[in-house]
Amino acid sequence: MTQEKALCDIGFIGLGVMGKNLVLNLADNGYKIAAFDLSQEKVNDAIEQDKEENKTDSQRVYGCSSYTELLSQLKAPHLIVLSVPAGEPVDQVCESLIGAGIQPDDIVIDTGNSLWADTVEREERYKNQFILFSSAVSGGEVGARFGPALMPSGSPYAWTRIKPIWEAISAKVDPKTGKPIERVEPGQIIEGGDPCAAYIGPAGAGHYVKMVHNGIEYADMQIICEAYHVLRNGLGMSCDEIADTFEQWNQGPLDSYLMEISVEVLRHKIEEETPLVDLILDKAGQKGTGLWTAVSSLEVGCPAPTISQAVYARSISSFKDMRVTASELLQGPTQKTLSDEDKQAFTMRLHDAIYCAKICAYAQGFQLMKLAAKEHNWTLDFASIAKIWRAGCIIRAVFLQPITEAFERNEELENLFLDEFFVEQLNKYQANWRQAVAEITLMGIPAGALSSSLSYYDSMRSAVLPANLLQGQRDFFGAHTFERLDKAVGKRYHVEWSSQERAIQKI
Amino acid sequence: MTQEKALCDIGFIGLGVMGKNLVLNLADNGYKIAAFDLSQEKVNDAIEQDKEENKTDSQRVYGCSSYTELLSQLKAPHLIVLSVPAGEPVDQVCESLIGAGIQPDDIVIDTGNSLWADTVEREERYKNQFILFSSAVSGGEVGARFGPALMPSGSPYAWTRIKPIWEAISAKVDPKTGKPIERVEPGQIIEGGDPCAAYIGPAGAGHYVKMVHNGIEYADMQIICEAYHVLRNGLGMSCDEIADTFEQWNQGPLDSYLMEISVEVLRHKIEEETPLVDLILDKAGQKGTGLWTAVSSLEVGCPAPTISQAVYARSISSFKDMRVTASELLQGPTQKTLSDEDKQAFTMRLHDAIYCAKICAYAQGFQLMKLAAKEHNWTLDFASIAKIWRAGCIIRAVFLQPITEAFERNEELENLFLDEFFVEQLNKYQANWRQAVAEITLMGIPAGALSSSLSYYDSMRSAVLPANLLQGQRDFFGAHTFERLDKAVGKRYHVEWSSQERAIQKI
Repeated sequence: MTQEKALCDIGFIGLGVMGKNLVLNLADNGYKIAAFDLSQEKVNDAIEQDKEENKTDSQRVYGCSSYTELLSQLKAPHLIVLSVPAGEPVDQVCESLIGAGIQPDDIVIDTGNSLWADTVEREERYKNQFILFSSAVSGGEVGARFGPALMPSGSPYAWTRIKPIWEAISAKVDPKTGKPIERVEPGQIIEGGDPCAAYIGPAGAGHYVKMVHNGIEYADMQIICEAYHVLRNGLGMSCDEIADTFEQWNQGPLDSYLMEISVEVLRHKIEEETPLVDLILDKAGQKGTGLWTAVSSLEVGCPAPTISQAVYARSISSFKDMRVTASELLQGPTQKTLSDEDKQAFTMRLHDAIYCAKICAYAQGFQLMKLAAKEHNWTLDFASIAKIWRAGCIIRAVFLQPITEAFERNEELENLFLDEFFVEQLNKYQANWRQAVAEITLMGIPAGALSSSLSYYDSMRSAVLPANLLQGQRDFFGAHTFERLDKAVGKRYHVEWSSQERAIQKI
Repeated sequence: MTQEKALCDIGFIGLGVMGKNLVLNLADNGYKIAAFDLSQEKVNDAIEQDKEENKTDSQRVYGCSSYTELLSQLKAPHLIVLSVPAGEPVDQVCESLIGAGIQPDDIVIDTGNSLWADTVEREERYKNQFILFSSAVSGGEVGARFGPALMPSGSPYAWTRIKPIWEAISAKVDPKTGKPIERVEPGQIIEGGDPCAAYIGPAGAGHYVKMVHNGIEYADMQIICEAYHVLRNGLGMSCDEIADTFEQWNQGPLDSYLMEISVEVLRHKIEEETPLVDLILDKAGQKGTGLWTAVSSLEVGCPAPTISQAVYARSISSFKDMRVTASELLQGPTQKTLSDEDKQAFTMRLHDAIYCAKICAYAQGFQLMKLAAKEHNWTLDFASIAKIWRAGCIIRAVFLQPITEAFERNEELENLFLDEFFVEQLNKYQANWRQAVAEITLMGIPAGALSSSLSYYDSMRSAVLPANLLQGQRDFFGAHTFERLDKAVGKRYHVEWSSQERAIQKI
């Protein structure tokens, strides 16, 4: 028995929704798995489900009841995949594996949403005990099962071992169209196609990139939600009408997984009548990655207002009682009824607003990665990152194709706003976007992501911003000094504001 | 000689702009100071300036050339005030004082802008060597000289020793009008008046409150800058015309120190002709406290978009070269020329927009302090904090009076938006605010603080937000579950989206 189990290729720890589906995906791709979870029920459940979905003659998943047993069932050097919650649990598992006798050339892959800085620290901490590799996974449960986007980073040696496995289980993109190749059946294997798994960089880089992916995801979701809110409350459309609109939008440049599932959610009825969304409590949860992205953008000094607005939108939603109270106290405009023609024209402008705000969210996310990479000495390949995101992950969208091309045209591109394709798109749609934001403002519907994106756009295209007055204020109260347009770069000046003469001094 | 110097009341370390002015302020109030700085030049400079400003017969400031000498010149138990940059320097001075023989009942007051969490950690770390007390100082150089706002926190025992000194040197407010009592002459002492110094709470609380003060300051400054930008670029007004407008605004509810100094900056001419602001480079600096506030708001889960927009506005300004390039690529609307009448009407609406956005910034700041206090078990007196800020500090404004009153009416107030005065004000001005934001949007002038404040307002007064769709999306891709409006609070549901039936499950 032990003999037979010793043949397992991969040890897997953590059999929650994501973990179990990754196990089945690995098994579909011919890997034998030794699986462990602190809950024996989850182990049994994974084995059961594998039996149901197994189209081969031999057992694919073996259950283990301890870390020691897990190690004993694996080929050496051991390859172990973790799918446990970020934070403490990762360290607990690592410590348990050390206790169970893990070896220095064994590899442990953390697939959770760990904070990137924790990963850097962990790789260093455990380097004499085993190789900690990290590879964030995006795609939710379905992605994990049938092909996620994978963002591996850490030891290049470990990557040579992991690469064939990761490329096998990842989502695939049709190299001709740039679109995902669907895989929906257990046991089904896609031949060919670009794998959505490419080495990102040193420890931490992969989790950082995944974190920014999630920040963009927050923004993307919020933008769609704002559109829904305006159509529902501003235009009085039904959920089905909104679903129809979104379905139509999903044929063009907004074609994306998030738009697609929004349609599904909007169409879902309880007892064939009441739209489910009308019954869902409007308090959004969050698990940290979006706020980490916003925090990082502030720390790195990268403007990312669309992303942080999306994070704030979730926190505002959580103050439900306060909002209900405030809604009875604070006034807005009286809603006007629009003609069908006006509604249609507005909806078209709203489409363009969503598209432009989406460009802003990605422009911010990519600039953030670029600035962080510079700070941490990572060499990131942005075209490759955009390629990975074209399938498997939550933000997959046809939109990733032009982003890929933009970075292929110029791998040093500082911001998507400077790429010829996006320049052309923004110039084409900015007037409608602007008009839509003004109209939504007058309707009294909150749309922080759409409107902050526009002020981001208007700031970025302003050769001169009012920071001159701000520097004047700072010099006035804090002697912070300022530079001058009419003097050499880097020279600093200060006005003696408190003296009568207010002489200007060169510092 | 040593005998004589042993009579000093206070040791002072760090004689930069803030430090020197605090020393002179302490001296004006009758305290003998032993002063030290790593730069002997700064020590000499402080002594020189004190000689010039000293209206008494006896020496007030004594220079020291080492930490040991400093301690030897002080009455025991020693009271030492630090004015050194936040971070490493504070620890370096603390370690040097330990080396010089500081005693456990000696008190060291950190008056810099330390990160509040560092202060908590430091107080604990040094508790066996000396008492680390913290007291942030606001008011810039003039405030430090003639009366700053002080936010002391830490050991209550230490506070009993510090209190009379702090109340003496702080800014004063006329208890009848709620307005600052001006003090501008060296040696001048204000009798009576409410001191802008009150004990905030345990270690860290004072620096946290000061951090939020600075976050609000960032927002306040950005709001004024956006108004300037719109008037200058949207309406084509001259700096003097804008100064006139601001001066007029400074007579009403916008009456504030920042508005006042903006007028001064706008009126300042180089060679009696060119407005200084036209020559100041539009790249804003920052020293961290604003971004810490934004970071903390994200971490605590408090919506603070006005504050974070102000931080992002500074980072966008720093990408000057990118903006100049983008300005030649990306289009906006063509500017329309407004009639004088339209300009006047717009300017009136802009005034109301600034006022409402300002309410938002303070609402966010106070809610953030409330949520952080809950998290850290601090008991903060918000009426007292608002009172402290009425004079001496950078954000001093008549506006602090109604905030004080709001918290006096209800010390548990969750958000200023729920106070009767602010409800009335917001309802009175929201239409003009809204109209102004829509107009600015159409002008193509970026105004992230003004517009994100409005979407904050519209979110907070929305009993229903589109987080229902968002929770549906999250359940779809990540099985994150949701609550239902038609079911008991706290019960969670999940739809089996990947199955044919899409049954809804209670979790």
